[in-house]
Amino acid sequence: MKYRVGVDIGGTTIKVGVVDENNNIVKRCAVDTPDTFEKSMKALADAVYATIGELGLKIEDFPCVGIGTPGSISSETGRLVFSNNTNWKDVPMAEELRKYFPVPVFINNDANCAVMGEAVAGAAKGRKHVIMLTLGTGVGGGIIINGKLFAGGDGVGAELGHTVLFHDGYPCTCGIPGCLEAYASATALIRQTKEAMAAHPESAMNKWVEENGKVSGRCAFDCAMAGDPVANEVVDTYVSYIANGIGSLVNVFRPEIVLIGGGISNSGDFLMNKIHAQMPKYTFAYDVVGYPAIERATLGNDAGIIGAAYSDQM
Amino acid sequence: MKYRVGVDIGGTTIKVGVVDENNNIVKRCAVDTPDTFEKSMKALADAVYATIGELGLKIEDFPCVGIGTPGSISSETGRLVFSNNTNWKDVPMAEELRKYFPVPVFINNDANCAVMGEAVAGAAKGRKHVIMLTLGTGVGGGIIINGKLFAGGDGVGAELGHTVLFHDGYPCTCGIPGCLEAYASATALIRQTKEAMAAHPESAMNKWVEENGKVSGRCAFDCAMAGDPVANEVVDTYVSYIANGIGSLVNVFRPEIVLIGGGISNSGDFLMNKIHAQMPKYTFAYDVVGYPAIERATLGNDAGIIGAAYSDQM
Repeated sequence: MKYRVGVDIGGTTIKVGVVDENNNIVKRCAVDTPDTFEKSMKALADAVYATIGELGLKIEDFPCVGIGTPGSISSETGRLVFSNNTNWKDVPMAEELRKYFPVPVFINNDANCAVMGEAVAGAAKGRKHVIMLTLGTGVGGGIIINGKLFAGGDGVGAELGHTVLFHDGYPCTCGIPGCLEAYASATALIRQTKEAMAAHPESAMNKWVEENGKVSGRCAFDCAMAGDPVANEVVDTYVSYIANGIGSLVNVFRPEIVLIGGGISNSGDFLMNKIHAQMPKYTFAYDVVGYPAIERATLGNDAGIIGAAYSDQM
Repeated sequence: MKYRVGVDIGGTTIKVGVVDENNNIVKRCAVDTPDTFEKSMKALADAVYATIGELGLKIEDFPCVGIGTPGSISSETGRLVFSNNTNWKDVPMAEELRKYFPVPVFINNDANCAVMGEAVAGAAKGRKHVIMLTLGTGVGGGIIINGKLFAGGDGVGAELGHTVLFHDGYPCTCGIPGCLEAYASATALIRQTKEAMAAHPESAMNKWVEENGKVSGRCAFDCAMAGDPVANEVVDTYVSYIANGIGSLVNVFRPEIVLIGGGISNSGDFLMNKIHAQMPKYTFAYDVVGYPAIERATLGNDAGIIGAAYSDQM
């Protein structure tokens, strides 16, 4: 059996996984993310060596160490250009990690690792052209063209959440007004839910929040599924943002499949059916060329580790 | 000297050009586009043979016949899926043309041929990652990734004019509301100009139209350059649409260069300076990664013929 190792760096936790030939994660390890970049790279390396050691493997048994990290990585220099999530800015991540590993080190953005994971072992297995949108706190994006990850000409692109949805609209955390992320993230849905609750005190959503303690991305979906008309309107409007965002990407990339990941995708068929209902409106020449498959991502949080583990193939 | 031949199909004219090794068009021919698809393909072939015959060349002297056409061409079947411009829908263009030519025939969308032409011999020469926007009656788009034309997974993508700028905004001719084309085309600028003229009868634009007969894409630019404040506002708003559209594409594709073509690009430095002034606002992480070169296309109407002639290389 041959193994691969993938690492998923997060703001609070660094996760390591060893993946077998059947794409199962056979050994895992998670450590707290230390407070500085250098300490984090050391902790990452220690965690990798500990995890593979438990399997009786040596680093030379692995084709590469694949890393997924928040932020943008220059494909030319291997520097992490910046990351909101970890507060690292312009750090020599590839150089630092090469001190610890005598095998090739590949570093990609975590959303890009997720789409690679889904393409290797998840909902996009066998597909050559894939777009993935991760709808969570923000909106992450990943693009596969002709079987290869596409992260922009210089490696810092594929920021699908930071494409325009509303010219000069709601301010996005990135500083640009009107980004897709400012309308289609779970954070945005929570804002939209609160607005509708304030305007419609009679909505079932207000009762839902009383019972559940606070507004979450589930509130509007749960109440819409239970038949609340105001919640249904919130969801339909929210879905129109997603469908318009997907349609816009489809008109450019024409992928074979679009995957939806992140917390919002847990709303399942109710969400997916609503997306499908709105896709014809936002697809160029829909009556002639249609639109591609749109499905939920299947690997959840493991997509990043599995995708990172296959970095050398993408 | 080795030659190439490119064809640019238009709604009214079919243009043929023979291109030499220095990318000069050394022989040209233009014929009216006949009223049916089959007649048009015959006329195209006749025009190609006449043009190369005048140079004493045979079709076997050419590596391929490259065609640019309005509309979308399926890369799998070679069928022209549809074209608003010529009213052809789902016609077997590759199959029909292969009857006439014993050398390989390549067919691409005309905006895609334009970006190939600029990459071979124009403003993007030597660049591996290029985006081109053609701002004319509509908004055409072309994408080059790693030196190769990218027209979407199935060949009918790269519809950059039909990406969203305003969710559920002004209706685009394609049927989708709020497309970039509905705000950033010359047609849209004319609409915006007329609206401002009606709201501001004192604007110099009203006088300009009296003198020039009708509103054109030049009206607002000419008057803004001459100092009219209302015209300047029209132009700044129009440029904000272009800059937001470019920024959105930059955040995904991170090209080395963005080219602006089409009639609007004739406004030159006045336009380009205004675009540059607004790019920081619409570029993700501008302070860290900046934005790429943005320049005017240089080949004008010849870009399509030259790009088509090099189809086998892209």
